[in-house]
Amino acid sequence: MRAVVIREPGGPDVLEVREVEAPEVPAGHVRVAVRFAGVNRADLLQRLGVYPAPPGAPPDVPGLEYAGVIEAVGQGARRFAPGDRVFGLVPGGAYAERIVAHEREVAPAPDGLTDEEAAAVPEAFVTAYDALVTRARLAPGERVLVHAVGSGVGTAGLQIARALGCFVAGTSRTQDKLDRCRELGLDAGVLASGGRFADEVLKATGGAGVDAVLELVGGAYVNEDLRACAMRGRIALVGLTAGATAELDLRELLRKRVELFGTVLRSRPLEEKIAAAQVLERNISPWLARRAVRPIVDRVFPLEDAAAAQLYIASNASFGKVLLRLDA
Amino acid sequence: MRAVVIREPGGPDVLEVREVEAPEVPAGHVRVAVRFAGVNRADLLQRLGVYPAPPGAPPDVPGLEYAGVIEAVGQGARRFAPGDRVFGLVPGGAYAERIVAHEREVAPAPDGLTDEEAAAVPEAFVTAYDALVTRARLAPGERVLVHAVGSGVGTAGLQIARALGCFVAGTSRTQDKLDRCRELGLDAGVLASGGRFADEVLKATGGAGVDAVLELVGGAYVNEDLRACAMRGRIALVGLTAGATAELDLRELLRKRVELFGTVLRSRPLEEKIAAAQVLERNISPWLARRAVRPIVDRVFPLEDAAAAQLYIASNASFGKVLLRLDA
Repeated sequence: MRAVVIREPGGPDVLEVREVEAPEVPAGHVRVAVRFAGVNRADLLQRLGVYPAPPGAPPDVPGLEYAGVIEAVGQGARRFAPGDRVFGLVPGGAYAERIVAHEREVAPAPDGLTDEEAAAVPEAFVTAYDALVTRARLAPGERVLVHAVGSGVGTAGLQIARALGCFVAGTSRTQDKLDRCRELGLDAGVLASGGRFADEVLKATGGAGVDAVLELVGGAYVNEDLRACAMRGRIALVGLTAGATAELDLRELLRKRVELFGTVLRSRPLEEKIAAAQVLERNISPWLARRAVRPIVDRVFPLEDAAAAQLYIASNASFGKVLLRLDA
Repeated sequence: MRAVVIREPGGPDVLEVREVEAPEVPAGHVRVAVRFAGVNRADLLQRLGVYPAPPGAPPDVPGLEYAGVIEAVGQGARRFAPGDRVFGLVPGGAYAERIVAHEREVAPAPDGLTDEEAAAVPEAFVTAYDALVTRARLAPGERVLVHAVGSGVGTAGLQIARALGCFVAGTSRTQDKLDRCRELGLDAGVLASGGRFADEVLKATGGAGVDAVLELVGGAYVNEDLRACAMRGRIALVGLTAGATAELDLRELLRKRVELFGTVLRSRPLEEKIAAAQVLERNISPWLARRAVRPIVDRVFPLEDAAAAQLYIASNASFGKVLLRLDA
């Protein structure tokens, strides 16, 4: 089968399409013919050599999410039959014509979505749902702040919060992305070009502050989040594009009784990956089916252009998701 | 009635015993003749003028906890009758012969404890229980790190964790306090005189790290906590004696999926104060009755010596609780 392989750590030109051995199907697992794979910022870090694949995942083929069709089922696997449309998360290897996964890590693709749309769902929606709903316990009517609101996870978080009837403030460094997010229900857009946003968020919430933050930027944003939080606010730290250290005002954390937690999907053990697949099936798919939320696909690149797709992500010009198309 | 009044913000000599008006008993409230009041570090901050009493509390009489006897009940109050022994938390005013509180904020004093012992319970045990059990969801058999383990809250946290069958590591800047904590069940004592402890805590847990931290020191300790944590560790920030800012390694927070939260009892609204009283009645008192935990009283000062009591706390020489005795 064809796969995009990282030849060695480096720039986009280290990605090359190679013919590799298709993976065997262990007991309890399924093999999926991948139709589309999502491109994520984590893939760029893996290519640079700073975010290696966890044990058990293909070490040199990036790709954390896919939509496709069941091609073979391993011994004892009973959830799917060949031909079933599925989507899901993997710890690596999705830039390839075939992937294998435990059948319980795989979810049925929703009927109303094309394969392309389905591939834009798993990483963005599971990350945002897990952070905001499962861990930050977002409740109907609360106020939420979503950073990088035009990103894949950002547009998912915005829609999930709106589907719960929440007031959503969002930041971006591009006015155009804030404008486009209005159509997805953004209540207050904050242009955070200088890294400051707390005063505007407080103003947009009548001084009350926000109950939850989807923090995709990190660095100095986190201390601004503390300022922007209401009493008992929860900050879900998911990304660190702005840096890995922060000087925090602990008095503010204490006084407001704020909760700050880090969360990451990729390195989780099997039982938690299964829980993530169940979120996809039980919580996200019904919302997709009734159009309460929808995947936002920006651009689709052929497998051969994986380097261009990653460059496009790195340029910060994308809105929503970037995908690779596989023609197996 | 007699009360200790803060004449003006300043050192211990601004505390003076005065004759003041005894408080009225509003509907739904009770008046308690205070026998003993706890002395807490927060009282010192209030005296210095940097931690003012919340609205509704006496602005110039410190004291956050008491044990005593019901003296009068307000209209509609039905939980207690005059003569009942009680204990509890108040947002201020306990350095006085009488306090009033809503009847639902007050808990019956456990039969097996003297008034002196009962007064050593509320702030230490409710703070530690709320932080470790209610909020950090401490589970049987987990590993815990308790800072300032010889303090009132520290000795309470240590005993609560041991009562749950947890492994407890504790830090202190005094070897003598670590030795005394051995008798309370401390598994691993770490002398943290230089502010470093993560390496020793990791060693004491066989490299695994701790699942929960009771953080009573703050400042640079918090980043060391991140290093000392296991995957999915929870850090409960309760005190800031070492400073109010911290530079945090967010990559560690993200990678380990750590949860850091601030918590403070004093400024909570009524419904949460009632919840705290219920913790005292439903969770702590049964443990006290069966001797699973016990209050640690270090010294008792007469009301006239409130300044000396506060100086003793400030000296860091105390082990467990310091109390004031009232002779109403």
